[in-house]
Amino acid sequence: MKSVLKIRMSAHDAHYGGGLVDGARMLQLFGDVATELLIMNDGDEGLFKAYDMVEFMAPVFAGDYIEVEGSITEQGNTSRKMIFEARKVIVPRTDINDSACDVLETPIVVCRASGTCVVPKDKQRK
Amino acid sequence: MKSVLKIRMSAHDAHYGGGLVDGARMLQLFGDVATELLIMNDGDEGLFKAYDMVEFMAPVFAGDYIEVEGSITEQGNTSRKMIFEARKVIVPRTDINDSACDVLETPIVVCRASGTCVVPKDKQRK
Amino acid sequence: MKSVLKIRMSAHDAHYGGGLVDGARMLQLFGDVATELLIMNDGDEGLFKAYDMVEFMAPVFAGDYIEVEGSITEQGNTSRKMIFEARKVIVPRTDINDSACDVLETPIVVCRASGTCVVPKDKQRK
Amino acid sequence: MKSVLKIRMSAHDAHYGGGLVDGARMLQLFGDVATELLIMNDGDEGLFKAYDMVEFMAPVFAGDYIEVEGSITEQGNTSRKMIFEARKVIVPRTDINDSACDVLETPIVVCRASGTCVVPKDKQRK
Amino acid sequence: MKSVLKIRMSAHDAHYGGGLVDGARMLQLFGDVATELLIMNDGDEGLFKAYDMVEFMAPVFAGDYIEVEGSITEQGNTSRKMIFEARKVIVPRTDINDSACDVLETPIVVCRASGTCVVPKDKQRK
Amino acid sequence: MKSVLKIRMSAHDAHYGGGLVDGARMLQLFGDVATELLIMNDGDEGLFKAYDMVEFMAPVFAGDYIEVEGSITEQGNTSRKMIFEARKVIVPRTDINDSACDVLETPIVVCRASGTCVVPKDKQRK
Repeated sequence: MKSVLKIRMSAHDAHYGGGLVDGARMLQLFGDVATELLIMNDGDEGLFKAYDMVEFMAPVFAGDYIEVEGSITEQGNTSRKMIFEARKVIVPRTDINDSACDVLETPIVVCRASGTCVVPKDKQRK
Repeated sequence: MKSVLKIRMSAHDAHYGGGLVDGARMLQLFGDVATELLIMNDGDEGLFKAYDMVEFMAPVFAGDYIEVEGSITEQGNTSRKMIFEARKVIVPRTDINDSACDVLETPIVVCRASGTCVVPKDKQRK
Repeated sequence: MKSVLKIRMSAHDAHYGGGLVDGARMLQLFGDVATELLIMNDGDEGLFKAYDMVEFMAPVFAGDYIEVEGSITEQGNTSRKMIFEARKVIVPRTDINDSACDVLETPIVVCRASGTCVVPKDKQRK
Repeated sequence: MKSVLKIRMSAHDAHYGGGLVDGARMLQLFGDVATELLIMNDGDEGLFKAYDMVEFMAPVFAGDYIEVEGSITEQGNTSRKMIFEARKVIVPRTDINDSACDVLETPIVVCRASGTCVVPKDKQRK
Repeated sequence: MKSVLKIRMSAHDAHYGGGLVDGARMLQLFGDVATELLIMNDGDEGLFKAYDMVEFMAPVFAGDYIEVEGSITEQGNTSRKMIFEARKVIVPRTDINDSACDVLETPIVVCRASGTCVVPKDKQRK
Repeated sequence: MKSVLKIRMSAHDAHYGGGLVDGARMLQLFGDVATELLIMNDGDEGLFKAYDMVEFMAPVFAGDYIEVEGSITEQGNTSRKMIFEARKVIVPRTDINDSACDVLETPIVVCRASGTCVVPKDKQRK
């Protein structure tokens, strides 16, 4: 069971100067991936409980296209362990001009994480 | 050549009361799909010129997961004709409780459109 | 029966690099114009159903002042046909300095569209 | 010399619960009106210096249409005194249903203010 | 009784070109300070009624850290008079590079104001 | 060396239904705290590299006032280890009415984390 979201980072997503997007934006997308996994698995949005590892591996900028993937690795009574990865697949080439962009032959991993969500017993519908 | 984006509508996307998202949000996503198609085809973000058809077919709400797909149907010297479709694939079930959601067996088409973009000759890199 | 809205595009409205505003923002404003026309005509916000023509005619940037106008051209039992036009009336003159701006003697049309809304019978209050 | 802006308050403008918009949003619109007045008068966006009076007279909600008017009352070498008024002209009638709205026969004044802007000598282009 | 909020201005807060934040953003923060004072004093968010003085004393930019302070100076039956001050305590040093910043030895006052809020009798819980 | 930010969660911060704020918003605030610590310590915004622990301990809602604290626990050549805590100190009492709020005698810890930032040698100004 896998969840993959894909989104373009726009100027609205810039948090720092130079169109730099903050790491928390990737964790917001991991939250949306986790929510989809819980809906597929339990029929409920559930709750994000914890991360045991988050790595910010490359900067993200407005204009990047980001693919975010997650999957459930382990299940307890109410806990759902998950792993996440965010990759940039398209990047602006502002060195050429302000609208040039490249599709990356090899996507660049920008963020990885692993964490745990829970779905209370009374909310589990599957 | 196809572009597919997928995104969760959050409370931030609500434009009207009751978490209702405005149609223009779907057209913003079509814009991001068109931009990806032009990058794949021409190596440039290009410019969105016109729609000859847009149909808003079902309401979209915060909590929905939306899949947006587009493809290039025809190419001129600088023009790129495209078709677009937005489908909801997950919906909240607020009738059950405030966190229940369903994966739709048959996605609901919420918006369809066809339009034309252009990439000026001097910006075409492929 | 006419609706005219007027608004300044700020840095919050930029979607692409260089303060470029996306076309969908103009369609969001057309949505607000359509809503006003339906309220004047039917006493209800109604629903935007379709566009049969949208033309993006000039780029819009943060700092522009945009005037958006619409009117009802035809009425069926529940359908309301409308035409829309967005014009920029003030533009930044960043070529002079970062706060110079001009009032345009002749407004520049940035977007035109025609479309159809509906107001269900049971929601019509006039 | 008068500036009039008109805008629909959407769910994005709600700051408090129940779709309540904060007073500062009206002052943001007064800022955009002041900027237009300075562009008409001096060809420059100028700087907002001070308010000597601001009165919040009625609550504003998502769904309201707000008309914002301002004019220059006095001019010094670089100072421009202005008065501002924000009026709601359309209101939702959630007591009837979630899409009913009324055009107000008599607009409701929601905010009034008077303040001073400045345009440095070297930035005055008229 | 004092309220102090502290926040980093991000690219999301820029309203004009060059990362310039509009004065209304400081008044939005004064609104949040006033709300905290009323909660401490009356156990209710209350309503902001008026400003009798607002002074914008220095420009605010994305990247600045802003400290906002307010206190109640006078109380009537339902009225609460307040004074407010916003100071920048950290500033970007883009003249050095795009990530250098300084903690200001002497904070720079960017905005001062005085105003009045009210808490209706039936909402006063202390 | 400590950094403390304090902010009111508004309707703009709601990500899920019922005014629920997503966990990533707290991590965005931890990012702003980390940035302040690096500026105090190194005179540079630095880069957030990783979290080794994040715990979401209580839900956050629009209307809550959140205090966010962080400190540097260990320093390498370029690495700065930090701990973070977010506490709610004021909560809405919607059970009483829509504007009642309480100052919490004992703040509720909503999120804890520990992580590592880096400041490249050439960017260290202290």
